[in-house]
This record gives sequence, C-alpha cells and structure tokens, in this order.
Amino acid sequence: MSLEGLSINFATVRQGGDFGAIVDACLAHGITAISPWREQVHGIGLTEAARIVEQNGIRLSGHCRGGFFPAPDAEGRRRAIEDNKRAVDEAAAMKADCLVLVVGGLPAGSRDLKGARQMVEDGMAELLPYARAAGVPLAIEPLHPFYAADRACFNTLKQSLDLCDRLGSGTGVAIDVYHVWWDPELEEQVARAGRNGQILAHHICDWLVPTTDPLNDRGMMGDGVIDLKAFRAMIEAAGFHGPQEVEIFSHRWQARPMDEVLTTVVERFKTVC
Amino acid sequence: MSLEGLSINFATVRQGGDFGAIVDACLAHGITAISPWREQVHGIGLTEAARIVEQNGIRLSGHCRGGFFPAPDAEGRRRAIEDNKRAVDEAAAMKADCLVLVVGGLPAGSRDLKGARQMVEDGMAELLPYARAAGVPLAIEPLHPFYAADRACFNTLKQSLDLCDRLGSGTGVAIDVYHVWWDPELEEQVARAGRNGQILAHHICDWLVPTTDPLNDRGMMGDGVIDLKAFRAMIEAAGFHGPQEVEIFSHRWQARPMDEVLTTVVERFKTVC
Repeated sequence: MSLEGLSINFATVRQGGDFGAIVDACLAHGITAISPWREQVHGIGLTEAARIVEQNGIRLSGHCRGGFFPAPDAEGRRRAIEDNKRAVDEAAAMKADCLVLVVGGLPAGSRDLKGARQMVEDGMAELLPYARAAGVPLAIEPLHPFYAADRACFNTLKQSLDLCDRLGSGTGVAIDVYHVWWDPELEEQVARAGRNGQILAHHICDWLVPTTDPLNDRGMMGDGVIDLKAFRAMIEAAGFHGPQEVEIFSHRWQARPMDEVLTTVVERFKTVC
Repeated sequence: MSLEGLSINFATVRQGGDFGAIVDACLAHGITAISPWREQVHGIGLTEAARIVEQNGIRLSGHCRGGFFPAPDAEGRRRAIEDNKRAVDEAAAMKADCLVLVVGGLPAGSRDLKGARQMVEDGMAELLPYARAAGVPLAIEPLHPFYAADRACFNTLKQSLDLCDRLGSGTGVAIDVYHVWWDPELEEQVARAGRNGQILAHHICDWLVPTTDPLNDRGMMGDGVIDLKAFRAMIEAAGFHGPQEVEIFSHRWQARPMDEVLTTVVERFKTVC
C-alpha cells in the first residue's frame, strides 16, 4: 500500500523535535504529507518551513490552526481576526490544502452559546475575503460536543455545513473521526459535504473504551471502536480522496519515541484504515 | 419559592445511606420528589420502598434505570428485556412518572454503532407492551456523545424523538441539561417533544469548565456554563411543568456530607434554576 494517502499531523509526534526534525522522520518513513501546528512553524520561521516543504515535495494536508473567534469584547475579536490572517499567510506560503479552524467556545464568563456561535460566524465572514484572496480554503473542524464550552461551539457536521452554506465558496469542513463518529446523521452529512465539494480534510485516530481523559487519550488506529475502513469508504464515496491525516493527542503515545510512533502509524494505516 | 418543583436523584447523595435515610434527609429539607436507583430500592426491598414512598406522599420523578439493550448474543439481549421488565414492575409499584432508560452502547468487541442502535430499537419495541400494560412510560435519556460507545448510543434529542415516534405511545425522553446543552437543534427538538407530549423528565446539574473527568465531574447548578433559567423556561414553554431533578455525578460532591449537599442544592434551586 502506497503511503501517499497518509499524512502526519505534528501533534501526533510533537515530542520528536522541531519542524525540520519531524519532517526528516516522516520522510525516512516514506511519508510525504504533513500538517504542522503554527508554533512549530514559528519555531524555525515561516521562510525556512516553506523552504523545507517545497524542496522536499511535501504536501500540507492542512495548517493547524486558526479560529478562536469569540472573545468578551470587540477588541478581542478584532485581534482574533488579525491573528487568523497571519495563519492564512502561513498556510498560503506553505501551499496548505486548507487552514483548519478550531472556532472557539464560550467567551470567558459567558453562558451564551448562541452568542458565541454568532461570533464565529461574524469572524469567519470577516476573515473569508482575505482567505479567498490568498487561495486558502477555511476548514471548520466540528469538535466533539465535549469541547463545546472551551474549544469549539460548532459540534456537528450539519451545523458546520449549514454555516459553510451561508458563508459560501472558500469554506468547508475537516472531518475528524474522533469528533463525529457518534453522529446519527453522519452518513447523510458526509454525503452532503461531498456533493458540495466541502470536504477539505480527513483526520483519523480512534476512540478508546474507556476514554479516561477527554483531551489526551485519543487512540491509535485499530485500538478503539471506530470502524475506520467503513468511515474511509464513506468519505471516498462522497468524493474526497485526499490524505488521511493522523492526529493523535495522547499522553501514552507522546511518551514514546517518534520513530516508534511513526512505525506504528504506518503499520496501522496499512492494516486497519 | 416552593420546593415542589425540585426532585433529588439519589445518585447525587448516594453517600448518605440507604433508601430510607436519603428519603428522611430529603423530607427534612422540604423536598418531596425523588428519583432512586434500582440498587437502592433492592437494598431495602421493593415492598418497603413503596411503603415509604406512599406513606410520605412522595413523588418519583423517575426510576433509575432500565436500558442496556445491546448485547453480543440473543441470550444476552433476552436477559436484558427480562431485567427491564423487573425495572418496570418497580417503577409501577412506586408509581414513578417514568422509567429512565440508559439504552446501552456497543456490545463488547463491536464497532457496529448502527447495529447497536437497532438492538435498542428492537429491545424497546419488545419491552413496550409490558410497560404500557403497567402504565409506566419509557423515557429514553439521550446521553452526551461522550458516552456513545459504552453507555448509550442514542445521543441527541432528535435521534431519540425519532425513535419515540416510531415506537408510539408510552415513550418519551428524559432531558438532562448535561447531555444536551450543546445541541445546535436543542430549541426546536424540545419544542417538538413538548408538542407531542414526549417530555417525561427534566434533569439538571451544570457543565464545568474544565470538566476533568467525563464520568464524575458534573457541576452543582450555578458553578458551570449552562444557562439553567433559560433552559427551564424553554422546557416550560414546551409544556413540561414536572420537577427539576438534580442528578450530579461528582467525586467532589460525593465527598461531602449529604446534609451539606442538600442545603446547597436547595439554595441553588432557589437562585439559579
């Protein structure tokens, strides 16, 4: 099985060193698609990161991440827009497939979930012309409802795609199995997203039983209860054939050497994905 | 504010002793509605529990709990039905408003979420004539998607109400703020449930930020981010005026004396609910 369809999100191997070190390790394992985080790019500088990407023929399945639009006051929301523009610039310089958005949750002290959702919509509407001009699609990543309060108040594919429909071209979704596998409307919403060309990224990991820590206990593919082959077949039937991006936030995997993690990822990608 | 609209789910004060001891404490605080768990009823025997309930004019806002229909084999599913019939008997003997159902998740070793959902539907369909004959409404409690794998594969109001519509009379939902507060379709689905007389119970607690333990870190009302007054107004606008049942699974509250917990519950009920 070719590894062309495999991408490594740098959160999975953040213990492995800086941007260059992780890229080298990916290449050594035959992996040529990646998705870095902003702080990792900043760590070596955007110019150097873009050089490494181009010289090695690397594809960015996404750039992580923009978002966090809600804030208690207008100044905070304005700063968020400006920061998102910088993220767009970075994604453009590295020719990323999309800028992944973790849209943000409730502003501090707020119980107004609807209000927060409106702030996300307003923020994306303001950012969108800039992203379009830069040629960077904005990918809303609906996060598991567990994160509604503090990370992302968009929590289902339907809700996110409805927003994409309102915002128009240059928007879509990043579909992470961890966040959406439970959704009773999963199939119809994936199909809908595919019909409208709104699938911008596909992230994989697994859901462990039990999941002891909602933040850092994601599973390696095959160790949990998600039917990953069936999920991928559904995504491809909807017309998306981009890489499967492995994003595993996990205390137990982050405690292991990068090389061991990548060896396991490749093996599982070949057998259970 | 009268405490007639307040019910105590016994999970909130399970540290307080047996069924009789918890009832006595509730009465001492002016609380006359309760929702016990089966093992607490079994602890003193159903006859004695029913006597305590009747002699003290106590209302059961629910009996906890039936469900867990999926199983790896037909024999396991048959045993689940039989056990649910005993739960119906208990609910009938104590004249509970409903039998709350935590419907169950994936059977051990399975990744077939659709199949599990079908097992729930089949199990409820088989149980329903018995429950109808006993006059015990079956309340599906859609659980937070976090529990889809191991506790309940019905995770939204819409999904649960669709099942109620297919099953017909004698079914409805228990609406727990903890499980559904994040739902983008909350308002329309609560209104729909109200229109069809399908709201059978209303559970309250709060969502803490951060929530450190998905099982046992629910918040006391007022300590989290759920707008409880607005939620209750929505429920009442939908036509449900039954008790607000306080169900708090929390290591920190279970470490405190029952009397302190009940004092806090009453104070918060009067101020933030």
